[in-house]
Amino acid sequence: MTDTRKAQTVAEQVGDVIAARATASRLLGFSLDEIGPGHARVSMTVTESMLNGVGTCHGGITFALADDAFAHACNSHNRMAVAANCSISYPAAARLGDRLTADCREIYRKGRNGAYDCVVTTQTGEVVALFRGQCRILEGHFIEGIS
Amino acid sequence: MTDTRKAQTVAEQVGDVIAARATASRLLGFSLDEIGPGHARVSMTVTESMLNGVGTCHGGITFALADDAFAHACNSHNRMAVAANCSISYPAAARLGDRLTADCREIYRKGRNGAYDCVVTTQTGEVVALFRGQCRILEGHFIEGIS
Amino acid sequence: MTDTRKAQTVAEQVGDVIAARATASRLLGFSLDEIGPGHARVSMTVTESMLNGVGTCHGGITFALADDAFAHACNSHNRMAVAANCSISYPAAARLGDRLTADCREIYRKGRNGAYDCVVTTQTGEVVALFRGQCRILEGHFIEGIS
Amino acid sequence: MTDTRKAQTVAEQVGDVIAARATASRLLGFSLDEIGPGHARVSMTVTESMLNGVGTCHGGITFALADDAFAHACNSHNRMAVAANCSISYPAAARLGDRLTADCREIYRKGRNGAYDCVVTTQTGEVVALFRGQCRILEGHFIEGIS
Repeated sequence: MTDTRKAQTVAEQVGDVIAARATASRLLGFSLDEIGPGHARVSMTVTESMLNGVGTCHGGITFALADDAFAHACNSHNRMAVAANCSISYPAAARLGDRLTADCREIYRKGRNGAYDCVVTTQTGEVVALFRGQCRILEGHFIEGIS
Repeated sequence: MTDTRKAQTVAEQVGDVIAARATASRLLGFSLDEIGPGHARVSMTVTESMLNGVGTCHGGITFALADDAFAHACNSHNRMAVAANCSISYPAAARLGDRLTADCREIYRKGRNGAYDCVVTTQTGEVVALFRGQCRILEGHFIEGIS
Repeated sequence: MTDTRKAQTVAEQVGDVIAARATASRLLGFSLDEIGPGHARVSMTVTESMLNGVGTCHGGITFALADDAFAHACNSHNRMAVAANCSISYPAAARLGDRLTADCREIYRKGRNGAYDCVVTTQTGEVVALFRGQCRILEGHFIEGIS
Repeated sequence: MTDTRKAQTVAEQVGDVIAARATASRLLGFSLDEIGPGHARVSMTVTESMLNGVGTCHGGITFALADDAFAHACNSHNRMAVAANCSISYPAAARLGDRLTADCREIYRKGRNGAYDCVVTTQTGEVVALFRGQCRILEGHFIEGIS
């Protein structure tokens, strides 16, 4: 197996482990649609139980979706990582019934630090959030026996 | 009624309106413990359904709690406001069973812009998140007839 | 002239106007190496007068370089824009004598809001800063007679 | 000498060391007006050589001022620290001739992490920048023989 295919297989295995353990992702109906080394795509539908005081999608839910894709992306190399710092901006509001997709990409990874960008779009391609996350890379692994 | 008491009454009324409408806050078990002009305190308990892939509280849930306090604080003057930009850092992980409290304070408000800081602590006072949110202030009101 | 070439010409003209007026950019020895619609590349050399208390490049100077590229990029469409919010992280320190290049790209622009990412690298390609800037787009233009 | 006075003396000594070494601070005319354990106040005047393309103070210079106060504050305990991540927002523009003061306070410090908030105001008290910096705390000291 090539290194590229091996890295992809590892990312998929880690993705399954995280998805199985992450109860919050299930609570919010997150679906891991794509996973690979350094990137992940997670989607959800804005339901009646995800609204804020003005009737649009609660910003915390949109953040959680982006953060979930970030967690998958930064752990995809089978090295445990934790979020250190995240920022988000909201160019537009997400609305009831919208299908939101968070697409996360690695922009930097070296030593104990990584940085990831995530764009959240609706089914029509409208950008509803721009997210950037920085992680601290730890010693542990999700799957033992794979360096 | 003094201006101070009036502002407090308005904040409480707006808080009730937002809390009644915000279905996401109920989904996540958020409790609005304190509300006043420019500040709010919201709390929640980390349950089995709020965990991430490493078994601690999902960062998105912690963010949502802080964001909820921010929403209450920045809308407390009865002028509708929307989050423009938020950042969060996580000095420590929150764990299953922790009672988290998000305390949010206004640090700036002028014209159409506001900035708010929020600290999230556990029941022992450990800081698990530092949040800063910036809002855009709109024209609308939550309660009509009050400027 | 095609729209693409026209947009390029406008960006170059605006770049010249900004570079001529921006005295801070001259003080810090910034060079505008490339400009186009929605992007800019600015470089500088870390001199003896740009150090901090530990002998590396002052983080404020590195930020100023990135911010300068951001200013060029977000104004390149000939619509005046002002920085609303910026964030920066420093994966590594820049050192005396380093030639730093800030490369800035538009990631979002709609209505009155824009978002730009900027990566600052050394002459060897090492990443010393990741910058993200959000701007508010105003009514004014740099060059009159061009919409 | 009480612990409080000792901490103040240490902060002042470290402040002198940093101010003596930081050539960038001199280039930009920064004045360290106050220093203590976990806080610092630094000021500057906006000169003709600090302007941007629209004739107001270059955002990078304002950031550098806030960052300088942050550097003093996070190093004031005589443990070397480096900036990991900073964010800034600009509620208003600073203008030629303005005397800007950056006041920085420690909001969190534990283990290897610290967080600091800095407000930059003009001579009339107008807020021109809100800055938040996070640092990584290293092993080294500025002054040996003091833990």
